[in-house]
Amino acid sequence: MPRTYASVDLGGTNIKAVVADEAGVIVGSQSIPTLSYEGPDKVLDRVAALVVALAQQVGHAPEALGMAVPGLVDLQHGVTKFLPNLPTQWRDVPVREHLEPHVGCPVYVLNDVRTATLGELTFGHGRAGGTMVFLALGTGIGGGVVIDGRLRLGPLGSAGELGHQTILPDGPICGCGSRGCLETLASGPAIAAEGVRLLLSGLAPRLYELTEGQPSRVTTREMAAAAAAGDENVRHAIVRAAGFLGIGVANLVVALHPDLVVLGGGVAGIGDLLFETVRQTVHQRVQVFPAGDVAIRPSLLGDGAGALGGIALAMCGGQLGQ
Amino acid sequence: MPRTYASVDLGGTNIKAVVADEAGVIVGSQSIPTLSYEGPDKVLDRVAALVVALAQQVGHAPEALGMAVPGLVDLQHGVTKFLPNLPTQWRDVPVREHLEPHVGCPVYVLNDVRTATLGELTFGHGRAGGTMVFLALGTGIGGGVVIDGRLRLGPLGSAGELGHQTILPDGPICGCGSRGCLETLASGPAIAAEGVRLLLSGLAPRLYELTEGQPSRVTTREMAAAAAAGDENVRHAIVRAAGFLGIGVANLVVALHPDLVVLGGGVAGIGDLLFETVRQTVHQRVQVFPAGDVAIRPSLLGDGAGALGGIALAMCGGQLGQ
Repeated sequence: MPRTYASVDLGGTNIKAVVADEAGVIVGSQSIPTLSYEGPDKVLDRVAALVVALAQQVGHAPEALGMAVPGLVDLQHGVTKFLPNLPTQWRDVPVREHLEPHVGCPVYVLNDVRTATLGELTFGHGRAGGTMVFLALGTGIGGGVVIDGRLRLGPLGSAGELGHQTILPDGPICGCGSRGCLETLASGPAIAAEGVRLLLSGLAPRLYELTEGQPSRVTTREMAAAAAAGDENVRHAIVRAAGFLGIGVANLVVALHPDLVVLGGGVAGIGDLLFETVRQTVHQRVQVFPAGDVAIRPSLLGDGAGALGGIALAMCGGQLGQ
Repeated sequence: MPRTYASVDLGGTNIKAVVADEAGVIVGSQSIPTLSYEGPDKVLDRVAALVVALAQQVGHAPEALGMAVPGLVDLQHGVTKFLPNLPTQWRDVPVREHLEPHVGCPVYVLNDVRTATLGELTFGHGRAGGTMVFLALGTGIGGGVVIDGRLRLGPLGSAGELGHQTILPDGPICGCGSRGCLETLASGPAIAAEGVRLLLSGLAPRLYELTEGQPSRVTTREMAAAAAAGDENVRHAIVRAAGFLGIGVANLVVALHPDLVVLGGGVAGIGDLLFETVRQTVHQRVQVFPAGDVAIRPSLLGDGAGALGGIALAMCGGQLGQ
């Protein structure tokens, strides 16, 4: 059997663990609820047990474990620093020190979206090399920047917070404390909120049918379906959000002229309407140099970018350090 | 005598040549008018003669020549591509091929602001290493991005067009063809235009005194003096422009978390009022991670960044190639 590596994605709701080989072929996976209120010690004990159980299942101990966490991390020591979506007791948790004795292999810890970027870099579109911007469009908007094949980390793995570019200086309040961030205009909740407004205002008949008039059922997926079915207002809401996203992408293109921009996360599932609008906006906004060579693509790994990112982190872990 | 290197900055109005040693100590310099209408052949012949004359003056042939041009360049072959401020006959000019036989040393050609960035990297604040964003604030706004000590070039040296980030999506028309670019809000002409409005509207008494009421004499320098002398409206105009600049800087900080942001060019001469506003804006806008470690400084080289950049380009020329 070839070498195997383990990956753990610590989310606010669930913990997902996978084991894969060097080619990124997943040979085992399992999810458990996070129950973050139990505190870091108990949760990490369950993480360790999960990895050990998976390793036994596949009959092979992992060479290393890559762990993705939702926040900033002391990369060198594998210690959490600032995890905004978990209780404050998750600050300064020595994840590496806690896990290594249990799992019996080196443990590397990194921000979750930077980890997903590493997944796309190692096993997805980024394999072609060069310079890539990755945006994960979900409840929030995160990202990662790869320059000449190397993930830009920054202090505590903080570089790549692409959802917190200001797009509208006087725009809506953002969870980060600033305003008019890309995240306030093009995240899943931002788009869905406009869908809810249209629904409640009687301006989206197809969306009304698809959701049976229930605001709680409005998602970007339902909105994409409603737009395709003829809801012009819903279509406009998607195009408007994608236009803001396009401005965010254009700002990165003028600064870095990347070979590739990859859009992942649930919002990217809107598909062609979103991608075409982003491409058109980049075309309109980047006129200072010819940027027709910048490919703008959906993630090749889709939902799997995070899990495979953890595998990539495990594989190159020691060399990611600052 | 130590090794010497030559630098030529080809501007729309003047050509500036310098010779310096490896430490960046300038041992000879001279400027001549560009007279770009004479066409590339004649202008490049004069460039060659200028470099040869300077070399004779200092009694030492340069090891290499670094030439900065206002636009995009095929770096590998030293051929101009798109120089928006020079007549169209300047497209596809084989600068290296033309100059090398005359000057008797290797010739490297690069965009002028990327060259200035290289100057700041090699002889200025960038010497400390790490990741640096450089913004040249003048008639236009250009820039350069240095990642882990290495200048990001992009195709044709195009990366680093930091003045063409969109700051106001529906903002003023930009020379590049887009709108609301940072350049339309915080370049010298953008700031001076607001000064002229205040002057003509009778809203800037100190500025009126300083310029004797003549709009043609309104510059960012005069405006800084008027603000310091008590013109609150002029002060507000500067703070507003610096706030937009701060948003542009903040967008780069969230994406790259650099160690250092350097502001150069004439507009940076406004001084503390500009720098403090930029720092405050970055503090307000970058809340997603602690960014107090990002230093925001005036260029150490000032007007000399371009000339010394050419020297740096000559010194490392062959290794800049894509």
